[in-house]
Amino acid sequence: MTWVTSAQGSGYGVEHLPYGVFRVGDGAPRIGVRIGDLVFDLAGAEAADLVLAGGALALPTLNTFLALGRPQWMAVRQRITELLTESAHRAAVEPLLVPLDEVQMELPFEVADYVDFYSSEQHASNVGQIFRPGQPPLLPNWKHLPIGYHGRAGTVVVSGTPVVRPQGQRPGPDGPVYGPSARLDIEAEVGFVVGVPSPLGSRVAAADFADHVFGVVLVNDWSARDIQAWEYQPLGPFLGKSFATSVAAWVTPLDALRHAFVPAPDQDPPVAGYLRDEPHLGLDLRLTVNWNGEPVSEPPFAGMYWTPAQQLAHLTVNGASLRTGDLYASGTVSGPRRDQVGSFLELTWGGAEPITVAGAERTFLADGDTVTITATAPGPDGGTITLGEVTGLVLPAR
Amino acid sequence: MTWVTSAQGSGYGVEHLPYGVFRVGDGAPRIGVRIGDLVFDLAGAEAADLVLAGGALALPTLNTFLALGRPQWMAVRQRITELLTESAHRAAVEPLLVPLDEVQMELPFEVADYVDFYSSEQHASNVGQIFRPGQPPLLPNWKHLPIGYHGRAGTVVVSGTPVVRPQGQRPGPDGPVYGPSARLDIEAEVGFVVGVPSPLGSRVAAADFADHVFGVVLVNDWSARDIQAWEYQPLGPFLGKSFATSVAAWVTPLDALRHAFVPAPDQDPPVAGYLRDEPHLGLDLRLTVNWNGEPVSEPPFAGMYWTPAQQLAHLTVNGASLRTGDLYASGTVSGPRRDQVGSFLELTWGGAEPITVAGAERTFLADGDTVTITATAPGPDGGTITLGEVTGLVLPAR
Repeated sequence: MTWVTSAQGSGYGVEHLPYGVFRVGDGAPRIGVRIGDLVFDLAGAEAADLVLAGGALALPTLNTFLALGRPQWMAVRQRITELLTESAHRAAVEPLLVPLDEVQMELPFEVADYVDFYSSEQHASNVGQIFRPGQPPLLPNWKHLPIGYHGRAGTVVVSGTPVVRPQGQRPGPDGPVYGPSARLDIEAEVGFVVGVPSPLGSRVAAADFADHVFGVVLVNDWSARDIQAWEYQPLGPFLGKSFATSVAAWVTPLDALRHAFVPAPDQDPPVAGYLRDEPHLGLDLRLTVNWNGEPVSEPPFAGMYWTPAQQLAHLTVNGASLRTGDLYASGTVSGPRRDQVGSFLELTWGGAEPITVAGAERTFLADGDTVTITATAPGPDGGTITLGEVTGLVLPAR
Repeated sequence: MTWVTSAQGSGYGVEHLPYGVFRVGDGAPRIGVRIGDLVFDLAGAEAADLVLAGGALALPTLNTFLALGRPQWMAVRQRITELLTESAHRAAVEPLLVPLDEVQMELPFEVADYVDFYSSEQHASNVGQIFRPGQPPLLPNWKHLPIGYHGRAGTVVVSGTPVVRPQGQRPGPDGPVYGPSARLDIEAEVGFVVGVPSPLGSRVAAADFADHVFGVVLVNDWSARDIQAWEYQPLGPFLGKSFATSVAAWVTPLDALRHAFVPAPDQDPPVAGYLRDEPHLGLDLRLTVNWNGEPVSEPPFAGMYWTPAQQLAHLTVNGASLRTGDLYASGTVSGPRRDQVGSFLELTWGGAEPITVAGAERTFLADGDTVTITATAPGPDGGTITLGEVTGLVLPAR
């Protein structure tokens, strides 16, 4: 148990210790871990020889630390746990604890490539029914491989960054119309952050997932449904997605999620050999989507059809290399019930079934709306950990 | 005229001066420009105060130099031209000239995001006829916007890098089959390299093309047609493209292409305001695709329906930011004749019409094949410049 008594029961105790990059005033970005409502300044801790990571913690992004690999991740985590639990270290560590409300959070890692999957069967089925009514809701390939595509890494932003409503072409009655998107939406997702790279021309086995993936961030893959609908054939989503993707400021290490792994749904038909992961495990992350402060949906990540280990194996089966900082997201997380879906497209069934949010009838996002996605996961001893939230305010089109 | 007499008439005179990154033996990567069959070591030139670029030429990639912007690009180009034309500089410069056959070329810039367009009407029509026979060859959106998608930046490799045949799922008579791609193909394209970034939430006008784009590289967007065919619905190409994209080692500055701009094809229907570029100019680059040394096609870039300025305006119309090192490629360059197409899919009409290459009947790529794409462009005084080639050898699947 940590001597930071305020951290106990916060979801940010020593059983969690997510990493982020913070700034105080005009200072340089610094790496820290969150403990309760405090940031433990790891740049300062490494400078004081309290933690040793070969200088990786003195840098303005997590990337060099992420590249060190699991043995080093575990050693640093173990050391931080000692520092925050053994009272002998309190005097040295306490000056390095900064209240969260005195810092500004930065993008925690430089994103190399960003891939977005589409791995919730409920989400894919819902989208199929909305866009292709009367046809089979899932396309023939869906249960054979984790469908995915590359997104724009350069527009991945940290939680709290406002999102400007995108302009673009959308379908109109007499051909395309240009202007601000009228169907701005969210996608509540879970992202996986690659630490250890792999060489071009080789594959990463599903079994090696935890050797390459450092941790998890919540993701909001903002989506302009009207722009997407007009542009996406035949090469997939482009400008309907590339204007902003928000990620949480705090990266939760896989080591903090040991108690969250649960059996993933059975897969039928059987999957190709390279996609077999034994044990076949998902993560019991319980998301909440808050629209202007009102919880409107609780997507259950445990029900995802394809697991993150399968996604990683698929991503590299063609010999594609991994780089430190690669981010791959799960795809929208939707459960079987209407109050478990991860997009407003589904929540309002393509805009046809408005819902009431804070007393107003709503379909897609209005300027001035704020969406905040939160999540918890099972922790040790029946407790829970709280993932770093991802939030964003919608600004009017420019 | 340059005092490097061997450069005259080579396509790499002082009217060209493409930038690259080279290495001698185990030495560190250095920035250079090509003059004839020599590399002018710009890191050495900057260290000797022969060229001033604030240290940007002393780095292992072009990115910092690319970020400097057009006035600096022009000033450095002007200075290099002086050094290579005025005989007074010969004694200082000559020790900095390294024969090309003594160097190893590296990826010239770190790729930020990689976008691939689909802007040849002939190519899109051919693909439509091959994949959707009996239906309109172009989809309804094609003439309203430059269709594009994001590719994998981390697997962009420099010309000369061997390409390992990808494995993956492909369509079979009784469902998907796993194994090496049986329909490995090329796409001959022209890539545009972004130097000057733009902020998130703003647009880049077509008229500002030359303020942001530094130059041009030939691109081979290797494609596994069978993997692509099975995976691409509904989110577009993924593993069928992400295993390797080759780019030339030499980046030709836009300033070397002043004589290559030509009126682009008329566009009907009229395009949206943000896509109007006046003057509406394409580039008269004449590509040749060489298969195992035999020229099999001569794609004409001047006929592309969408111009690079329009592609840039479209890419950012939703507020997506640009980063230094962003690469966007034209899409496969195909002209109206069969001997002008930029893919083997088209050249052999989906594999149904084999061609004879070096005495053998061929459809798609075999292990051991080499494909080299070259190009020329009009230069000053009726001359031509030669773009840096992009070449790759196909290795067997692992």
